[in-house]
Amino acid sequence: MSFSLADRQDTIVALATPQGIGAIAVIRLSGSRAIEIVNEVFFGKDLSKQESHTIHFGTIRDEDKIIDEVLVSLFIAPKSFTKENVVEISTHGSSYIINRVLKLFLKKGARLAKPGEFTQRAFLNGQFDLAQAEAVADLIHADSESSHEAALNQMRGGFSSEIQELRQKLIHFASMIELELDFGEEDVEFASRTELQELVERLMRVVEELILSFDLGNVIKNGVPTVIAGKPNAGKSTLLNALLKEEKAIVSDIAGTTRDFIEDEININGVIFRFIDTAGLRETTDTIEAIGVSRTQEKMKTASLILYLFDLGDTDLIEINRDVNKLENLGVPFIKVANKLDMANPELLAELKAKHPDTLFISAKNQEHLEDLKAKLMELVNLDKFKTGNTVVTNIRHYDSLIKTRDSLLDIIHGIETEVTNDFVAMDIRRSLHFLGEITGEITTDDLLANIFSKFCIGK
Amino acid sequence: MSFSLADRQDTIVALATPQGIGAIAVIRLSGSRAIEIVNEVFFGKDLSKQESHTIHFGTIRDEDKIIDEVLVSLFIAPKSFTKENVVEISTHGSSYIINRVLKLFLKKGARLAKPGEFTQRAFLNGQFDLAQAEAVADLIHADSESSHEAALNQMRGGFSSEIQELRQKLIHFASMIELELDFGEEDVEFASRTELQELVERLMRVVEELILSFDLGNVIKNGVPTVIAGKPNAGKSTLLNALLKEEKAIVSDIAGTTRDFIEDEININGVIFRFIDTAGLRETTDTIEAIGVSRTQEKMKTASLILYLFDLGDTDLIEINRDVNKLENLGVPFIKVANKLDMANPELLAELKAKHPDTLFISAKNQEHLEDLKAKLMELVNLDKFKTGNTVVTNIRHYDSLIKTRDSLLDIIHGIETEVTNDFVAMDIRRSLHFLGEITGEITTDDLLANIFSKFCIGK
Repeated sequence: MSFSLADRQDTIVALATPQGIGAIAVIRLSGSRAIEIVNEVFFGKDLSKQESHTIHFGTIRDEDKIIDEVLVSLFIAPKSFTKENVVEISTHGSSYIINRVLKLFLKKGARLAKPGEFTQRAFLNGQFDLAQAEAVADLIHADSESSHEAALNQMRGGFSSEIQELRQKLIHFASMIELELDFGEEDVEFASRTELQELVERLMRVVEELILSFDLGNVIKNGVPTVIAGKPNAGKSTLLNALLKEEKAIVSDIAGTTRDFIEDEININGVIFRFIDTAGLRETTDTIEAIGVSRTQEKMKTASLILYLFDLGDTDLIEINRDVNKLENLGVPFIKVANKLDMANPELLAELKAKHPDTLFISAKNQEHLEDLKAKLMELVNLDKFKTGNTVVTNIRHYDSLIKTRDSLLDIIHGIETEVTNDFVAMDIRRSLHFLGEITGEITTDDLLANIFSKFCIGK
Repeated sequence: MSFSLADRQDTIVALATPQGIGAIAVIRLSGSRAIEIVNEVFFGKDLSKQESHTIHFGTIRDEDKIIDEVLVSLFIAPKSFTKENVVEISTHGSSYIINRVLKLFLKKGARLAKPGEFTQRAFLNGQFDLAQAEAVADLIHADSESSHEAALNQMRGGFSSEIQELRQKLIHFASMIELELDFGEEDVEFASRTELQELVERLMRVVEELILSFDLGNVIKNGVPTVIAGKPNAGKSTLLNALLKEEKAIVSDIAGTTRDFIEDEININGVIFRFIDTAGLRETTDTIEAIGVSRTQEKMKTASLILYLFDLGDTDLIEINRDVNKLENLGVPFIKVANKLDMANPELLAELKAKHPDTLFISAKNQEHLEDLKAKLMELVNLDKFKTGNTVVTNIRHYDSLIKTRDSLLDIIHGIETEVTNDFVAMDIRRSLHFLGEITGEITTDDLLANIFSKFCIGK
């Protein structure tokens, strides 16, 4: 899918509210003919004579048949989301009416909008840059405080301004080098190589930090994959239910993956944890169970966190030591959680506190000490950086561009160190500028745009 | 559930668009404090200083945290749907944002609206009468041209004005009788008994017609229950698929009823036919099949129409005669449809045309002569009356009130005929006026209102 210039001159229309039964539905048109098209079927007032940001009551008619009583909102270019003429029609929320009204607008010359086409027009008309446009989709899909905050920050330009700043510094750098190229024969040096090297290294640190923030950004956007490992009777589901109950959060069973793994999403202090229940840790001689166990180990390796849960009434120190040993070999951060505190024998408790002082003691059933567990989970996710308002990369496209920027910056440093000629350095700088420009959309291709906006829903 | 006066003074809030992912969502507030409440959390402009029917861009904030960038539409009393101050906030379509914004308004003093409460307020504040308010819900659920048209007509007051007219005539009649009562001792007659009897009889005919229209109204609103009866290989599903394909209509499997019956909804010329497939007509000795067959007969008795389908390549005249005989005994209108026209032997064709000249000959597989079948279906539904714009009763509550009105009108006629005293006649007239008033809401009780509006969705 790609958008030609002709496409951009069409007046587009789509349902902007979700499908389904509701009190009202909103149908949105954008384009130079938007007001004219609605005016042809709207009875009540002459819309062409009304001011921007006003609302008008009337009926929509197909020939002499009334389809609905509606409210029409007018946004006259450039004072609209797309910077084009935009009309929003608020109809009764019936799919029959929505279909009739949409068909009527198509008949009058509008075209059905492609996914994300309203936002794309807003970007193309300079309403915001590409990273901000992408944040609109993230905002709609945000389901926790942290993902909402990251998307809103990005939509309002926080991330873009950081990238812009980097780019400005590089452009300054580039202009110096290009100037030196103009005086090529004369061996002048407008830019001190030492200062330039320092500047590039400073840029490198910022880019590196943004790259590192992607792990956090990913966690914020998609949740923290957390394996909950332990024997079948360790109280895994009791614990999940207890955490759910405390948070009264959005719960969803994610169907699919495999039948062995059940995922529960739990919102803890504004972060989504995706808890993955597993078949257990122990080795086994039973072939079928063995498959389950090896899968479990795979799951555990790709998790961000492991919650190792054991039953104080049904475990001894030997077993715990063996399990902990295995977990340490996996290299994934893990939390030792001793459940059924009420059933613990004092001897094991004492041994555990001595040998594994970082163990958390809880009772999932009685909902005791769950706060400690949640605090530990938050600590391991390390959201502090985010909380202080630092910029976080949540978009894999931005991450890729940053990686490429880093590589070109490394080439610049390498070039300076090995004293390559200015034209090579200038080329590497232009490459860095290109990759940074891709993020904000200063550098784009039709394919890139089509790819980005095709992931939006229709009507946005 | 019942609404007290205090309830009516609250400012109410609800999501007005469907749940789910969409480009935008609309949150609606109504009540004297609506503008004030939104103004407390909206940043961009002072909403209290803006005119009605204007739109304002800004941010919604919870303390210093931005929740979303929004558009706010203002409707200042009495120029709004509820005739109260109404504010509509158009947010990004994320359930996270919707929940945050709703909670914020609750914190600022709004109350979550009960189902239908916006429409109820519109009714209580005189925006429209009760029959019109009820039509709003019907309009939202309308899924065919005819049900949409009936609901829209009722919402725009077509039905109400017919009832109002009846009521006015009766009120005139009543005032004459009451006047006579004032002169009770003097034996005057302001209203000629003959003329009055004629008037009541005229009213009776209108009420009777409205009552009769309920069958049609029911069909329009809920679809025509049509049993498709025939042997398993008669081509029932081929026929249903062929009709579906032609109409490209909304199809839905209605789960439930029983496992023996599958319902398909097909929109034919703007009318929904609910086709019910059955196990067949024939008697059987197999007990389980026998149960199926007796259930089939029950289904057929309650249907509005039966479509008797037989296979020309696998039926003889004896069988057809026997089936038709059975169908005639059921007393439900039926259509004889001969399928597999391409496989018919000429002899049977000739016999059929002679014995059963009203048989329709089709080929479901080749989609031949389906137009004839559809024309016949439409003819039996008898929508002509509706098409000419006559008022149709679609609401069972209105139907009940009309039945009661008819009974009181009969009492009046009986009273006049048996020359009862004026006070009895006056009483019967008052009863008729009461029942007609129930339809438009001139006569209501809290329970009645609560019952009606509880069937609405929240946000309407």
